[in-house]
Amino acid sequence: MTSTATETGNAATYDPRKVLQHPQFRILAAGEKPSKDANIAAFYNPAHEIHLVEKPRPVPGPGQVLVHVRATGICGSDVHFWQHGRIGDSMVVTDECGSGHESAGEVVEVGEAVTQWKVGDRVAIEAGVPCSQPACDACRTGRYNACPDVVFFSTPPFHGTLTRWHLHPAQWLHRLPNEVSFEEGALCEPLAVALAGIERSGLRLGDPLLVCGAGPIGLISLLSARAAGAEPIVITDLFQSRLDFAKKLVPGVRTVLIQRGSTSKEQAEQIKAAAGVPLKVALECTGVESSVHTAVYSMKFGGKVFIIGVGKNEQVFPFMHLSANEIDVSFQYRYANQYPKAIRLVAGGLIDIKPLVTHRFPLEDAISAFHVAADPAQGAIKVQIQD
Amino acid sequence: MTSTATETGNAATYDPRKVLQHPQFRILAAGEKPSKDANIAAFYNPAHEIHLVEKPRPVPGPGQVLVHVRATGICGSDVHFWQHGRIGDSMVVTDECGSGHESAGEVVEVGEAVTQWKVGDRVAIEAGVPCSQPACDACRTGRYNACPDVVFFSTPPFHGTLTRWHLHPAQWLHRLPNEVSFEEGALCEPLAVALAGIERSGLRLGDPLLVCGAGPIGLISLLSARAAGAEPIVITDLFQSRLDFAKKLVPGVRTVLIQRGSTSKEQAEQIKAAAGVPLKVALECTGVESSVHTAVYSMKFGGKVFIIGVGKNEQVFPFMHLSANEIDVSFQYRYANQYPKAIRLVAGGLIDIKPLVTHRFPLEDAISAFHVAADPAQGAIKVQIQD
Amino acid sequence: MTSTATETGNAATYDPRKVLQHPQFRILAAGEKPSKDANIAAFYNPAHEIHLVEKPRPVPGPGQVLVHVRATGICGSDVHFWQHGRIGDSMVVTDECGSGHESAGEVVEVGEAVTQWKVGDRVAIEAGVPCSQPACDACRTGRYNACPDVVFFSTPPFHGTLTRWHLHPAQWLHRLPNEVSFEEGALCEPLAVALAGIERSGLRLGDPLLVCGAGPIGLISLLSARAAGAEPIVITDLFQSRLDFAKKLVPGVRTVLIQRGSTSKEQAEQIKAAAGVPLKVALECTGVESSVHTAVYSMKFGGKVFIIGVGKNEQVFPFMHLSANEIDVSFQYRYANQYPKAIRLVAGGLIDIKPLVTHRFPLEDAISAFHVAADPAQGAIKVQIQD
Amino acid sequence: MTSTATETGNAATYDPRKVLQHPQFRILAAGEKPSKDANIAAFYNPAHEIHLVEKPRPVPGPGQVLVHVRATGICGSDVHFWQHGRIGDSMVVTDECGSGHESAGEVVEVGEAVTQWKVGDRVAIEAGVPCSQPACDACRTGRYNACPDVVFFSTPPFHGTLTRWHLHPAQWLHRLPNEVSFEEGALCEPLAVALAGIERSGLRLGDPLLVCGAGPIGLISLLSARAAGAEPIVITDLFQSRLDFAKKLVPGVRTVLIQRGSTSKEQAEQIKAAAGVPLKVALECTGVESSVHTAVYSMKFGGKVFIIGVGKNEQVFPFMHLSANEIDVSFQYRYANQYPKAIRLVAGGLIDIKPLVTHRFPLEDAISAFHVAADPAQGAIKVQIQD
Repeated sequence: MTSTATETGNAATYDPRKVLQHPQFRILAAGEKPSKDANIAAFYNPAHEIHLVEKPRPVPGPGQVLVHVRATGICGSDVHFWQHGRIGDSMVVTDECGSGHESAGEVVEVGEAVTQWKVGDRVAIEAGVPCSQPACDACRTGRYNACPDVVFFSTPPFHGTLTRWHLHPAQWLHRLPNEVSFEEGALCEPLAVALAGIERSGLRLGDPLLVCGAGPIGLISLLSARAAGAEPIVITDLFQSRLDFAKKLVPGVRTVLIQRGSTSKEQAEQIKAAAGVPLKVALECTGVESSVHTAVYSMKFGGKVFIIGVGKNEQVFPFMHLSANEIDVSFQYRYANQYPKAIRLVAGGLIDIKPLVTHRFPLEDAISAFHVAADPAQGAIKVQIQD
Repeated sequence: MTSTATETGNAATYDPRKVLQHPQFRILAAGEKPSKDANIAAFYNPAHEIHLVEKPRPVPGPGQVLVHVRATGICGSDVHFWQHGRIGDSMVVTDECGSGHESAGEVVEVGEAVTQWKVGDRVAIEAGVPCSQPACDACRTGRYNACPDVVFFSTPPFHGTLTRWHLHPAQWLHRLPNEVSFEEGALCEPLAVALAGIERSGLRLGDPLLVCGAGPIGLISLLSARAAGAEPIVITDLFQSRLDFAKKLVPGVRTVLIQRGSTSKEQAEQIKAAAGVPLKVALECTGVESSVHTAVYSMKFGGKVFIIGVGKNEQVFPFMHLSANEIDVSFQYRYANQYPKAIRLVAGGLIDIKPLVTHRFPLEDAISAFHVAADPAQGAIKVQIQD
Repeated sequence: MTSTATETGNAATYDPRKVLQHPQFRILAAGEKPSKDANIAAFYNPAHEIHLVEKPRPVPGPGQVLVHVRATGICGSDVHFWQHGRIGDSMVVTDECGSGHESAGEVVEVGEAVTQWKVGDRVAIEAGVPCSQPACDACRTGRYNACPDVVFFSTPPFHGTLTRWHLHPAQWLHRLPNEVSFEEGALCEPLAVALAGIERSGLRLGDPLLVCGAGPIGLISLLSARAAGAEPIVITDLFQSRLDFAKKLVPGVRTVLIQRGSTSKEQAEQIKAAAGVPLKVALECTGVESSVHTAVYSMKFGGKVFIIGVGKNEQVFPFMHLSANEIDVSFQYRYANQYPKAIRLVAGGLIDIKPLVTHRFPLEDAISAFHVAADPAQGAIKVQIQD
Repeated sequence: MTSTATETGNAATYDPRKVLQHPQFRILAAGEKPSKDANIAAFYNPAHEIHLVEKPRPVPGPGQVLVHVRATGICGSDVHFWQHGRIGDSMVVTDECGSGHESAGEVVEVGEAVTQWKVGDRVAIEAGVPCSQPACDACRTGRYNACPDVVFFSTPPFHGTLTRWHLHPAQWLHRLPNEVSFEEGALCEPLAVALAGIERSGLRLGDPLLVCGAGPIGLISLLSARAAGAEPIVITDLFQSRLDFAKKLVPGVRTVLIQRGSTSKEQAEQIKAAAGVPLKVALECTGVESSVHTAVYSMKFGGKVFIIGVGKNEQVFPFMHLSANEIDVSFQYRYANQYPKAIRLVAGGLIDIKPLVTHRFPLEDAISAFHVAADPAQGAIKVQIQD
């Protein structure tokens, strides 16, 4: 903190208009081949279009680092912003906006007063940059995902990290050891979400666990929960293929296929039968009302339903069942202080996330990557763009 | 634990049919004056009648104590069983059933092998008697309110403690010091509910708190929360008279009158303004959907809505607001291990619950007491029957 | 709980004099070959002798089960009672006393009112049987290892489970699934110690951990901590052979050989260098003063030194270093509520404890087993007696 | 955080040499009367001298505020630095050094970009200013008292707040409401220590508590613990006069006079008798070995001895008693995130700390104040310098 600490903030530093109003900013024509060293990126807009753009290559200021982004995963929220233009009432696409926040890359240039990084360093990018001011309760108390002044790259209006050259505060990069690839480094972002959930869920060694949903977050939660010693683990999904994938990732997991016609109580009975012991924690990764109900009905007295998934604004809860069984309900919003742990667990071999990347595209084909990620028929778990 | 530990359980020992099928059991005629030493009690039945009955005076067996019940409070659930015949699907009035579970009294006879009590001892009665078997997970792990084999006196089919002579296991009585009256001893039951909620809510010294509802449980929660050092405390209610009562109990409390036409978000704004600082915990004591919403919208990021009140089976929750703000939702079901603490806090003067008793009736007039308790126009906070 | 619950307790039921004063009780002559169905056992006495004895085969009373003990591990405390006659001031060998408390076996007879077990069932024996009375704070609140009236088999004066036919309360046996051998079932006892320590230490997924000591408890703690996702893990010992064994068990572990001449601060520097990241938790499994110091100096600000090992009555602590770094110190005494979890983790393959058994003896050779266990030159990790 | 965030840190901004090398810096002659608007301060030096000095009145830079210090309490550490020149090995008086860190005052000038304060605002000064950099684990995770780059005013080499005009970062001041006097605002510093201890000790409503030592921190801990609902509370001291003072502050407290000849076990028996119920937490406020032992022996199984006091570098602990009773030992180092709570509790009337100030001196007589504070015969609890 210095004398000028309160003068400008991250919002000004990373003002998206600096890019949009730059003379070099332009939308590439469909099919246009960008040059190898152009700073291209995948942008969406309020008209639900997605396209490549070309932007200036930024120059790092004091405390900043320029990163050559080498791998970026497409998140469900990226697809959602493209196709629906908003998440809730506070995150709305109102202009051209850059996508992507699951990224890792290589340091190519460092700004003044940056001593901890040098060109060639391999890093994971923590996409949410809070204000870090002492007067901010969230930042001062360590719960920086609650910072009201956060710049979260790819959450409108801020552009994302799915680009060639990304400018980032030096202090919000995390070193990747040699044994962690860029691909894995990019996966550390959804892993951070799962780890935050697991940390706050209180899940401990030997706890019987339910994971609802075998999509990307469900599968990463499954891997993480198994690394944390959850046993038994039951996982649910509507698709047998996803359960099969889960079973390949964690052979000991028990799977329950959710039948669309069945009630939550019926599903809970199947889950309890599969577990064989009372279930203490659920990691709910779908955000779907019926799945939350199933999780609730599956828990023992005193259990916890920890909801990582997002869903409908308002949802019915089985209030009296929760009450008569003292079942806690908790939620996860992004993450704080998870990156170092995520990298450590991947480097140490405790969590093997590589199998989750099912599709890879070069940066020039980022738009195709989005179309694959958005199409359930493609069966993609995680689509990555690599450069 | 002895060789016969598994032979019979509390359900057999306190089988309600022993009373109902006893030749001395009879329903008193309306207006009939019972004798001074008759074991009378207030019973309700599936026809929603409530009346005095006469029962035999029980004889304590080994490990049992006969208590002359000296004070019993009427709980909302007593009135509910009388008027609605059930709470949820598992507690249903199917026969004549004795009311009352907020009681204190005097030991009048002790059974074989009872060494800790003697005639004349003053005791609070813990109305829920779990199985205490090592094979019961709930009992073995200290969370005995989850015991599936609990005998909770006054929860159908088990008769309650609103009677003259009540038979009880010696180990589930709690000594009242001289400075705690029977009236206060009886109030230790709802106090135990509030204390359990506060313990599990994580409320700590200096935490800004919202209490929703200024009925008996809300007011006892208010007193307890203030004893725990919550500051500031905001309390809400639909009636100004109740808020005034709250203000008399805890002068420092800030009150917010809930306007029926207002939205939960509007109410939350009023509550936040009254608090002046971000609220960390809510003790929701109404169980009403709109009040739960108000509590949720009043919380800071990372806050906790702790629900003590019971209500509709299913309720809508503001799911995405909970998620984006990592607000935890928890619930209380009865209590475990709270009585000694409750008595200690009353005896030590940290919680003064006496002002809560607004109406007192002799045992012979228990039915009148029920009618007062059931009529909101009477403005009763806590009605007690004393003998 | 029944009417007679307070009449007799476990201490009377399992009174060791019933065995010692029984006409069939006798000490076998050295070299005497006992018959195949004699109820032999290994007993020590105040003269520091250890020998086989013959006892009657007990008959299970109500609520009891007779177990054919199939595997029993020798614990350091067994050897200590034999050779030193006491642990602390409260556990003193004053007569012939049976050894052993790490046992698993087969149900051969059940007493009256035992419904959950039948002949042939495979069980782990939880050796500590608390009073389970509601009036016992420890038992009622779920922390039953604090029960002052516990009968812990093999802690004087109570005889142990290293015998052929052991009588046990039905509710303190734990079912072994088919995939868990008797050998593993017996190992669940020291595993329960480690799991209790890990549970109370707060160790979570991704926490950097130090394990002090690579003896049986250190190694089981290592296995358990890795199952809980600790990373990195550094383990220390005075002997390279033990560190090599640790490395075989958990290839990712980092080892630090403790040099006898070095200071605790020097050792801590080596440990920190091996870890590469600040260490958050230490599981101290030696109880040796210098090792505790090393653990303390190895921790980060806010770390926790969790002491499972026992040692000298009084020990010097680096008080101001603890204070200036807010390092918590905690201890483990036996365990509560760990057996089901231990069995679950072994059955699920998350903890593979089989490699710890380095020596096996038939029951008739139990005395030889003790001599091997007591001789460090033999390099035994866990010696088991099997029948 | 801005582009220059990493360029300079607090250590440079508040470099003590800026004052010492300033041409206006001079030591006042004994008896010299300083002018009313001179920026005088109480400084000590390695020769164990204490004297008034005159310094320039600083000019606030960007993000800084100039405070007219209106009240400052003398802490035991101030006296210790003066008389002993050091605390431990890391905090050593090597030059003239300003004292005082328990201060409140009035804003008299604000620097550039300071928007939250204006002239005349009343503030408490949080004396420890951590780096608040995201790359600092301590600061980023909310445990900023562990920041290795903290500037703690009055801890050598940094000058203290016992001066007329103190320069401070705007973000580390806390608003005093009208109902909190400067005197109370200054007391919020030791209150912050006690509150941090209570928060981390886990003390909850109704917990039976021991407070060891009735000095300033012991008494503030007593007040705070009572506000948190501890009951019963036993407090110990070597002096009856201090116990009498404690009794006046909190009439319900139970006092135990420590007899110098008695053993810790004997003292523990007296304490347990005074409590009447098993004690769950001890707040040890002396740092004296024998008192720590007494606290340990006074605890129930599973209790916690929380040590706020500082003392000898190395101390003997009753290791096996701690182990056999699972007694946790924890420590407090300064505080984090306590000021807003402290002010709230004082403003709300839950903690009345005013009676603790037994002696008041004008700033010109600060040296006399130090002599009174340093002399036990004066019986001072808290000496304050007011201006």
